Amino acid sequence: MIQPRTLKGFRDHLPAQALARERVLDVARRVYRSYGFAPIDTPALEYLEVLTGKGSEETDKQLYRFTDHGGREVGMRFDLTVPFARFAAQHVNDLGLPFKRYHMATVWRGENTQRGRYREFMQCDFDTIGTTSGVADLEMVLVVHDLLAAIGVERFTIRINDRRVLAGVLARLDLSDRSTGVLRSLDKLAKAGPEAVAAELAAQGVTADAVAALLEMARLEGPAADVLARLESLVGDAAIGVTGVAALREIVAGAAAAGVPAERLVLDPSIARGLDYYTGIVLESFLDDLPSLGSVCSGGRY
Amino acid sequence: MIQPRTLKGFRDHLPAQALARERVLDVARRVYRSYGFAPIDTPALEYLEVLTGKGSEETDKQLYRFTDHGGREVGMRFDLTVPFARFAAQHVNDLGLPFKRYHMATVWRGENTQRGRYREFMQCDFDTIGTTSGVADLEMVLVVHDLLAAIGVERFTIRINDRRVLAGVLARLDLSDRSTGVLRSLDKLAKAGPEAVAAELAAQGVTADAVAALLEMARLEGPAADVLARLESLVGDAAIGVTGVAALREIVAGAAAAGVPAERLVLDPSIARGLDYYTGIVLESFLDDLPSLGSVCSGGRY
Repeated sequence: MIQPRTLKGFRDHLPAQALARERVLDVARRVYRSYGFAPIDTPALEYLEVLTGKGSEETDKQLYRFTDHGGREVGMRFDLTVPFARFAAQHVNDLGLPFKRYHMATVWRGENTQRGRYREFMQCDFDTIGTTSGVADLEMVLVVHDLLAAIGVERFTIRINDRRVLAGVLARLDLSDRSTGVLRSLDKLAKAGPEAVAAELAAQGVTADAVAALLEMARLEGPAADVLARLESLVGDAAIGVTGVAALREIVAGAAAAGVPAERLVLDPSIARGLDYYTGIVLESFLDDLPSLGSVCSGGRY
Repeated sequence: MIQPRTLKGFRDHLPAQALARERVLDVARRVYRSYGFAPIDTPALEYLEVLTGKGSEETDKQLYRFTDHGGREVGMRFDLTVPFARFAAQHVNDLGLPFKRYHMATVWRGENTQRGRYREFMQCDFDTIGTTSGVADLEMVLVVHDLLAAIGVERFTIRINDRRVLAGVLARLDLSDRSTGVLRSLDKLAKAGPEAVAAELAAQGVTADAVAALLEMARLEGPAADVLARLESLVGDAAIGVTGVAALREIVAGAAAAGVPAERLVLDPSIARGLDYYTGIVLESFLDDLPSLGSVCSGGRY
């Protein structure tokens, strides 16, 4: 007699949960399609070499990997971005560029379940590749907005920033060569508070004036027009920063024109996300009535 | 530089294929729900002991299995029926009986790809558990009918039989103790022809009269009323056979009442399917314009 049980970190979906998930996937599909994204799928298993060294050391360690019947080293996908990079490289000639795809599928990570994480969960990615147009950035904001609204969330906030603004401010402060350490410290602001972050920055040799400017930047809040004006002055004539501020300004204007209520789109210069990964706009979104969930929908230009 | 490629037996779905598949899944979902089936999901990975010894020796051999980070022996599901048995045993108290579920998900089998098979594919199961009512059998036929019709197939045939009819005929011929061998031989009828099957049966010690009766049964065709009349005489007073014929008669009448065109539902006493598995009605379905596909949708009572 075998005890009927699921593996630790895995779970069954009974009808109540499965129905709710089907509805969310259905809504997401409809919104993605309404913006011209097309579905794709990739295998759950990939050559191990496709998956390793693409995420963090942590994702490498969490990878479900084994040797298959043919002696091949394989792994189960841990996200949908790495398989998409492989997919895009393989099929670019058939697809044409730019290419807009959505992919909603299961991923697996041998995570520590004590943190309340599951080892099997779904991701609902959408990506545009092969364009430098700012329209793709605006579209990302609008898709996330429409998605959360269509799911029926009453109160939510989309927080955006642009990595180029961060780069501009750092350039202006002569800290470009120390950006990883500085951004890592700033990232702790919400949890550790300004004093602790200021001390950490000072320990890295950042001058008092620069610390003040960085903290001012990271703590900016209020109406978008005001934040943009302050960022404009903080980046000064650093070209990359000027570009970043202009991009944010365009998104704010475009979202307003598309009918996104102003209170749902917030400029948040403290957002950095994936230090090595993103190169332009970055986005996080929060359910106002469930802040403990953290960001429910995130992304950016890479 | 890593060459971007999928594993042998695995494939990407580009938008054209992914869109087509989404449509089929959508139609299936709608039909399943219209008959009161509810969705569930189970993990891709199960304890190895849940999966092994449940299918055939072949599925055991094809299993993707490995040892996970916690030293557990695990396997990737090779169908949705075995996980459903585990699921039902685990949650029966929460679900209540009868329970009707559908489950559309990916399964994995390390098959020989030379036979044109993929190692990763989707199954779209629906099952009713916890009822002996013949309504569930009729419902199975109607779901398959509505599904194929809703997908847009113009010409298709659903072929049904009842394992109890086979058992009745075998009982009548005093062959109950040799049923596995006899059914295995009969199963070769379409491929090997009646002479070869007759010779094989004779070699098993089946009398000439019994061989003739078996071949007559397996080759019965024509209007349902005629086939039912012949089956009635072939099972004689074997109780299990009488029950089987009555069950088939009820399904034919019910399907007609529900508007299934007579030419789409064929009684086919040659269908046995899964020798040890099914106990009542068995069903296969074929696209008339694509016979080489074989049965596209199969099942039965177990």
